[in-house]
Amino acid sequence: MASTRSAAAPEVYAEVLHFYARQMHMMDGGDFAGFAKTFVEDGVFTLAGGRGVLEGREAIGAAAEAAEARYQGGRPRHWFDMMTAEETADGTLETTYYALVSVTARDGSVLFEPSCVVRDTLVRRDGGLLMLSRTITRDDIDRPAAG
Amino acid sequence: MASTRSAAAPEVYAEVLHFYARQMHMMDGGDFAGFAKTFVEDGVFTLAGGRGVLEGREAIGAAAEAAEARYQGGRPRHWFDMMTAEETADGTLETTYYALVSVTARDGSVLFEPSCVVRDTLVRRDGGLLMLSRTITRDDIDRPAAG
Amino acid sequence: MASTRSAAAPEVYAEVLHFYARQMHMMDGGDFAGFAKTFVEDGVFTLAGGRGVLEGREAIGAAAEAAEARYQGGRPRHWFDMMTAEETADGTLETTYYALVSVTARDGSVLFEPSCVVRDTLVRRDGGLLMLSRTITRDDIDRPAAG
Repeated sequence: MASTRSAAAPEVYAEVLHFYARQMHMMDGGDFAGFAKTFVEDGVFTLAGGRGVLEGREAIGAAAEAAEARYQGGRPRHWFDMMTAEETADGTLETTYYALVSVTARDGSVLFEPSCVVRDTLVRRDGGLLMLSRTITRDDIDRPAAG
Repeated sequence: MASTRSAAAPEVYAEVLHFYARQMHMMDGGDFAGFAKTFVEDGVFTLAGGRGVLEGREAIGAAAEAAEARYQGGRPRHWFDMMTAEETADGTLETTYYALVSVTARDGSVLFEPSCVVRDTLVRRDGGLLMLSRTITRDDIDRPAAG
Repeated sequence: MASTRSAAAPEVYAEVLHFYARQMHMMDGGDFAGFAKTFVEDGVFTLAGGRGVLEGREAIGAAAEAAEARYQGGRPRHWFDMMTAEETADGTLETTYYALVSVTARDGSVLFEPSCVVRDTLVRRDGGLLMLSRTITRDDIDRPAAG
């Protein structure tokens, strides 16, 4: 850990967990405009697999909505774990965590998408948290070839 | 968020996570009487899919025990995530979270039941937490038909 | 709960969650020496299924590295939940939690290993946490035969 960072205080850690709960309730519930508003206006979303970078709420919300088609009518749920949250000297928060998406189809079957590691940067605005950036790496397509 | 609610303080959030850990250790470990006692005496459990409402510890414990047959000798484990916990003006807590049940069979295979969203109301009694109610919605059978 | 134990304070609970996040980032990322150093020098790791007891960092790190072969090139991710953390009178921490390992193959498919229950003992050293011991029970092979 660099000298300019320290683990987030427990009350900040709890706040971050709440932030993600609300964010994913919106995402998984189809409220893509609400999801986009958890980013700052000019937030940046870096997709996995070198598939590009989304800039701004409009682009982020549109991409989230477009991605929903891959669930084929099933209900996605995001699962996060193994989260570290560090505060930097300038007050931003950097989180790193695992993410897994389950998709429950109408027939009750459950599929899982490839596990990911996510790195976010958050800032405090008007007393709440907003995301500056999200960067996703996927465990299937973002790995170096075997040696 | 209504003006009468606020996110639970971090110490309450940690307490709630402990409460659920102990509750699910009992449930998944087959201690259905212990599970039932995490509710108030006249607690209410609303099943998914319009399958009814259980009232009181005895009914809740008996239903949990009866449900065990569906695991066919496998070991269930409940996984919760994306939990919000809000305190209302009268001191009750309202939580909303995702739940997923894995079932590990004796041959080592792992199945998952359909993901759910759970909404609980908890109250403080004698220094600890007890559940007034639990309401489960399942992502396969509790969704409106596609438009 | 015995009179000599009490639930960990929320700041300790948050610290424990961070500890596990960092530990699992190392384990799942292939840093087995780093993983071994999350134990005290003479730490003890009791394997599931009566498969033995590892003593000391070297044995623990070597076993973790050897275990990687079973992922067959896939990327493991550990998922923990339902964690209780209790402090004993002498300042050690005892945690109990569920663990599940997902393995994402290069083709994007996701498999899950049998769910486990883990019991750890941690101590504070030089301001941080280190593990005295870990004991794993697996839900497929560590269960008594059906009655």
